Amino acid sequence: MTRTVYVNGEYVAEQEAKVSVFDRAFLFADAVYEVTSVLNGKLVDFDNHMKRLQRSMLELNYGPKIDEDEFLEFHRKLVSINKIDEGIVYLQVSRGIAERDFAFPSSDTKLTVTAFTQKKKLIENETATKGITVITVDDLRWKRCDIKTIQLLYPSIAKTEALKKGADDAWMTQNGYVMEGSSNNAWIIKGKNIHTREADNLILNGITRLAVMKVAEQLKYRVVPKQFTVTEAENADEAFITSATAFVTSVVKINDYKINNGKIGVFTQSLREAYIKQALDTLT
Amino acid sequence: MTRTVYVNGEYVAEQEAKVSVFDRAFLFADAVYEVTSVLNGKLVDFDNHMKRLQRSMLELNYGPKIDEDEFLEFHRKLVSINKIDEGIVYLQVSRGIAERDFAFPSSDTKLTVTAFTQKKKLIENETATKGITVITVDDLRWKRCDIKTIQLLYPSIAKTEALKKGADDAWMTQNGYVMEGSSNNAWIIKGKNIHTREADNLILNGITRLAVMKVAEQLKYRVVPKQFTVTEAENADEAFITSATAFVTSVVKINDYKINNGKIGVFTQSLREAYIKQALDTLT
Repeated sequence: MTRTVYVNGEYVAEQEAKVSVFDRAFLFADAVYEVTSVLNGKLVDFDNHMKRLQRSMLELNYGPKIDEDEFLEFHRKLVSINKIDEGIVYLQVSRGIAERDFAFPSSDTKLTVTAFTQKKKLIENETATKGITVITVDDLRWKRCDIKTIQLLYPSIAKTEALKKGADDAWMTQNGYVMEGSSNNAWIIKGKNIHTREADNLILNGITRLAVMKVAEQLKYRVVPKQFTVTEAENADEAFITSATAFVTSVVKINDYKINNGKIGVFTQSLREAYIKQALDTLT
Repeated sequence: MTRTVYVNGEYVAEQEAKVSVFDRAFLFADAVYEVTSVLNGKLVDFDNHMKRLQRSMLELNYGPKIDEDEFLEFHRKLVSINKIDEGIVYLQVSRGIAERDFAFPSSDTKLTVTAFTQKKKLIENETATKGITVITVDDLRWKRCDIKTIQLLYPSIAKTEALKKGADDAWMTQNGYVMEGSSNNAWIIKGKNIHTREADNLILNGITRLAVMKVAEQLKYRVVPKQFTVTEAENADEAFITSATAFVTSVVKINDYKINNGKIGVFTQSLREAYIKQALDTLT
């Protein structure tokens, strides 16, 4: 069996899913992306993923606009063809194909749109039950991490480094402050206060981050966006990550420090459950 | 007429030159590259480009090794098939094709090797005669610019911004210091001293940069590698850039400041001529 992949309006077998070597994604990392989760064969928070995609494209001065209805249609079709009950749709939009030149090509250059699915256990899996462990690494990324581009080499290096050291992920830090995980936002809980870094140009403003803020307020916790140090994190009552695929996942160890005695946090667990409930109630 | 492009051992028409959407260059900007100039149908400084490529791959823990003889062979074949008398060969090596995952795939994943040519007037062209103008912009790139990766979105943004403002290129700065151009090293001359930033993790150590250092010494100028401020550059006697395609090209204006009264520098010109002479004498 082979997946069906979307490439510029065509549905093709994954072995046939190819793009030009002159695509600017391939030569200049000039592309943006979104990962939308699928639960019960439907999309989670699709509209907000499209809004963020539009913003990424605007920040990079992409010329052509995208048609959200068309995007929704091929997302749904991929989910259906590939029989995705639980998993993700990966979507990428690049500035398109042009002769290699640092200067942007003409603004009417046709965008390259590709998408594929992955099956994943999102609700019930080992990290949901046991939590994850993280190490901290110096954040060497560029200064526009608010744009969701494919310049992911450093997060990829950091993730690989974490696995090599027996951890599940790496939190990237600047001057002792936690920025975010390799592909997720980082949070801590102290008493009734929940902290996650304010979303500026240095981190990605997660779609799940925003949804979780609302859910936390509904649970009467106080969300106070602020940056926190590695030491504060190591001494937090609970810690967790959020992302489109992790939802809310407990962090039970940061470097050598166990959080909540190495067990998943009670509030984190209730937050995860509440988030999943509202996600299931609002599928597209 | 269509170019012939090299893709993993095959020579194909440029329209057919394609790679998988699962290539890590396309999804994670996980690829390194080299641009080798061609003069008289032969390669300039090929061995040093290969050495730097090997270093880039080593820094990123690419598993498989490359065969320099094989690389030389397809470089020569592309130059020949495409009748390149003067121009460049663009070479890219990515970590290869793998299911999308931030963690590096198995170290025996097959590298994706692609290469194509561009015809360009390198020795005689308008910038050689008139010089170029540059603006300065804040350097927002990551902190491993010593590795020649395809994470080129910011240099591309900077170059486009320069053109929009009527300049030819942008010099990227950090805390008032000039780092490098969008795809070249930046230099100034004060008296008998030539300055260019020391090559650390924040800039690319240009192959042409190293060659020009030697040529300058032969011409009895003193090369003193050190970082310089935008103000120092604006008040320099001469300024220039070096790269595989620009060789040595005079900078005649930096922001609003004319350098050498807006004319190409005398020493810069002699350095350019001496560099080209030794390049022509040592072709591969």
